[in-house]
Amino acid sequence: MTDPLPTFADVKSAAARIKAEAVYTPLLENAALNARVGGRVFIKPEPLQRTGSFKFRGAYNALSRFSDAQRETGVVAFSSGNHAQGIAEAARLLGMPATIVMPADAPEIKKQGVVARGAQLRLYDREAESREAIAGAISAETGATLIPSYDHPDIIAGQGTCGLEVFETLASQGVAADQLACCVGGGGLIGGIGLARGALSPETQVIGVEPDGFDDHARSLAAGHRVPSPRKSGSVCDALLAPEPGELTFALNRHQLARVDVVSDQEALGAVRYAFETLKLVVEPGGAVALAALLSGKLEAANRNTVIVLTGGNVDPAMFARAIKGEARRA
Amino acid sequence: MTDPLPTFADVKSAAARIKAEAVYTPLLENAALNARVGGRVFIKPEPLQRTGSFKFRGAYNALSRFSDAQRETGVVAFSSGNHAQGIAEAARLLGMPATIVMPADAPEIKKQGVVARGAQLRLYDREAESREAIAGAISAETGATLIPSYDHPDIIAGQGTCGLEVFETLASQGVAADQLACCVGGGGLIGGIGLARGALSPETQVIGVEPDGFDDHARSLAAGHRVPSPRKSGSVCDALLAPEPGELTFALNRHQLARVDVVSDQEALGAVRYAFETLKLVVEPGGAVALAALLSGKLEAANRNTVIVLTGGNVDPAMFARAIKGEARRA
Repeated sequence: MTDPLPTFADVKSAAARIKAEAVYTPLLENAALNARVGGRVFIKPEPLQRTGSFKFRGAYNALSRFSDAQRETGVVAFSSGNHAQGIAEAARLLGMPATIVMPADAPEIKKQGVVARGAQLRLYDREAESREAIAGAISAETGATLIPSYDHPDIIAGQGTCGLEVFETLASQGVAADQLACCVGGGGLIGGIGLARGALSPETQVIGVEPDGFDDHARSLAAGHRVPSPRKSGSVCDALLAPEPGELTFALNRHQLARVDVVSDQEALGAVRYAFETLKLVVEPGGAVALAALLSGKLEAANRNTVIVLTGGNVDPAMFARAIKGEARRA
Repeated sequence: MTDPLPTFADVKSAAARIKAEAVYTPLLENAALNARVGGRVFIKPEPLQRTGSFKFRGAYNALSRFSDAQRETGVVAFSSGNHAQGIAEAARLLGMPATIVMPADAPEIKKQGVVARGAQLRLYDREAESREAIAGAISAETGATLIPSYDHPDIIAGQGTCGLEVFETLASQGVAADQLACCVGGGGLIGGIGLARGALSPETQVIGVEPDGFDDHARSLAAGHRVPSPRKSGSVCDALLAPEPGELTFALNRHQLARVDVVSDQEALGAVRYAFETLKLVVEPGGAVALAALLSGKLEAANRNTVIVLTGGNVDPAMFARAIKGEARRA
């Protein structure tokens, strides 16, 4: 490991760096949800973030730190879709070329979001090809700087601004959070949130949520070292299919996470439906797993103040229609 | 006309009255929307309001002013659905009985929202029956106080808190709005917003938006007196099918509105789809007509600061699925 672990100071620097371009997303409360769980729930809605997910935070933070020489040759990234759009948008804003390596089965809306922002798109087969190898070859050929989707200090610090905002907003309302739940893919967002929690709200428990079969963080925490997920593809939570925790993210998360809950695809789709019906927010399945843990009762919220991070809303209409009609429950 | 016209002082009183129960909704900005129109657009997302529409504001304001005797006999209301839910929720919170008279073709999600809140539901035929007569008979029989959905000073003042919040939030950001667009059904919301505008941001033009065939406000402004809509039913904008402007609302709106734009059902559904794809908000067709006016170019927003009020998000999954898949464009 060559990169140092990011700190809360890096999160604060990132917040200043992204301020002019990123959305300071609100913290929402819903009376029906509070009544349902018997406690106060604060929703951090990152679908409202630029590009429709929190990923813009880390991407813009990382790219805005490029040297002039790096800006010239640009950036290459691999991503299931949301990091891709974050990188493409940040590169567009900063005027640098970008190449995105993306699984062929990624949602169309995410592929289109990359192309619309002027980035080059290179598709790959999730089961048969190595995205690391493809991105590495592009980097060697063009000189582009590889920015990974989670295991990079500037990415983690940038995502941490989401947590910084949560705890700033809660403090302005005089509220202390007992717990915060957030999905875990590669662990960059929850790692960054953990940094903000450590500095601003150390009494808040940070709880990860993963989809069934892609619970590499849960297994790694249990084992005490990094363990890959049993599966590589086949979940509706396309945003959360990282093969294993990152070196940096696991180094943070093994100390920062109270635990990791696991939810099924059906629970994730049920949360998408609940967000549609009651919260009136568009959330993608992977972005809804923390809400799924809450609604399924895995995350106990009675008489507590709970923060739920909804991380993204880039979902194809067909998938969303299936979720809100409840067809997935019969699938 | 017996009721006096509400004033901005009534809006401020209403804001204090509803504060503990209503959501102070955020004001959202979206980089993609700004880029599309070439100006700054501020979205006021009332789907995030309690009960999923702005209607809770006026309902809670009106019911919280009931005398003890009125609370005993409760409230009766007729509504296409969102006022119904606002009244049902306010009555539940204030512990009074409520009966709601609702068209039989109202969205299921709105009917369920009324029943789930413990109110009595009385359905009627929109073409053949008079909701006023039905509600009047219930009031005569039970002693319940009739609270109309728009033509009442406490309702108008309560809805005006939406505008109060818009101009307060803009002022805190140092922004002056050139124009504000909002849908018009009976005209209560835009009438109340106009009161806030008059006091807080008199330079802001207030523009109404109505669905094609239900443009009673546009026709009434042109005629100089109240004119009914040519149609009574058959629009996807179920929330906006008021038969004609109210006495109170027209008395306000004839002076407060700069103009009224008219959009088609297809434009409204296109705005629902845009809100899904880009804003990540669930908006019902009637709640999206101001956005439809913006996206269709009827509302010119280049180099201006424009406020768009999205008024509600209570839409059945089947209708929403149809809108986001673009099927309505071929209908």
